Amino acid sequence: MDSPGTRKVGRPRDPLVEERLLRVTQELIAEIGLDSLTMNRVAERAGASKATLFRRWDDKRSLVRDAVAAFDVDTTIPNTGALRTDLEALIRTWVSPIGYPPAEFRHVIAAISRDPDIWRAFDAATHAERTRSLTVIVKRAVSRGEAEPLRYDAAFVTRAVHSLAVEHAAQRELPLDEAFVARAIESIVEPILGVGRDPEADARDVAAGIPLHVRR
Amino acid sequence: MDSPGTRKVGRPRDPLVEERLLRVTQELIAEIGLDSLTMNRVAERAGASKATLFRRWDDKRSLVRDAVAAFDVDTTIPNTGALRTDLEALIRTWVSPIGYPPAEFRHVIAAISRDPDIWRAFDAATHAERTRSLTVIVKRAVSRGEAEPLRYDAAFVTRAVHSLAVEHAAQRELPLDEAFVARAIESIVEPILGVGRDPEADARDVAAGIPLHVRR
Repeated sequence: MDSPGTRKVGRPRDPLVEERLLRVTQELIAEIGLDSLTMNRVAERAGASKATLFRRWDDKRSLVRDAVAAFDVDTTIPNTGALRTDLEALIRTWVSPIGYPPAEFRHVIAAISRDPDIWRAFDAATHAERTRSLTVIVKRAVSRGEAEPLRYDAAFVTRAVHSLAVEHAAQRELPLDEAFVARAIESIVEPILGVGRDPEADARDVAAGIPLHVRR
Repeated sequence: MDSPGTRKVGRPRDPLVEERLLRVTQELIAEIGLDSLTMNRVAERAGASKATLFRRWDDKRSLVRDAVAAFDVDTTIPNTGALRTDLEALIRTWVSPIGYPPAEFRHVIAAISRDPDIWRAFDAATHAERTRSLTVIVKRAVSRGEAEPLRYDAAFVTRAVHSLAVEHAAQRELPLDEAFVARAIESIVEPILGVGRDPEADARDVAAGIPLHVRR
């Protein structure tokens, strides 16, 4: 992805070398975090010279931004036969998008969320594709009769889950584990899709004095 | 709020001086952001000596954490007679919690979200009270017949709106304006509460080939 103003122009490029450098940068972000990452370590691990690296990127920040923009988003749309398990599979890839365990990806999200330029590159690389996957999954659930046809703001629901993951990982330093995935689905995504709603049971509890502002 | 380990002990304290220093710190965070804030500027604006300030706090970080923990949460629960306007009033106070215009509070949220310790102090000061307000508002809407009785995860819905505000302000550097408040309500809070749902209209659009993954 070209980044005018920081990517140097007018020099011959080898796309394979460039891809390797970005890949190594992605690995190191996940392994050691953004703070400990240096141009030196990237060059060393990639078996390239620092000159090769600096020929392409002026500084660590522009390198990281391009590495994050080049994250491979998993474009496989889960198809498990049920909405709940589709959502679980999908949101699992969201909190661990480059195949790393969520425990490690926590540090990646924390690191990239600290720099708005880097965050926007990540958002641009992931958001539209994720919204599209969610849309397909819900459409299938509607056609199976698992969910009523319904309007919802797929892009903003996707963003809400992203934002929760960032707050969870970066601000509260909690693991992006299965419990997080389950709560995001049960408390945000399913209710928005109207799944699992039972106003009659709720009305009975209200009549019995049981409060409803609790987890379902 | 005591902060063991950073708040110095064993010295006489004047709560009024302390409160004034925290208040001035809060003002400066909102006005100039956390990066430009210095112990010097706080002392100067408060008309106190640096010695007075350092007697209470070892460094800027512990001062800021205590100032954020002491944010006055608006405990007035809106009561406008309708769910939508109650939610608008409530979420407006969430994105501008210390009475500053949302345009300025954007910088506050961005600043405090960069340090997990400071974020947790802010979260502890605000989250429970906000969840309680949301609960009261929804309960009133149910009793007015505006919403069906329903179970929902009030704490996580509150957190989702907080997280969206952080991502919006800190990561994407967008203003926390009325458009943000409206979209958070229409796309997240109202659908979770089952408000504005119309499966029959949706079904007609499905029959007519109109996609539903759009804003309501």
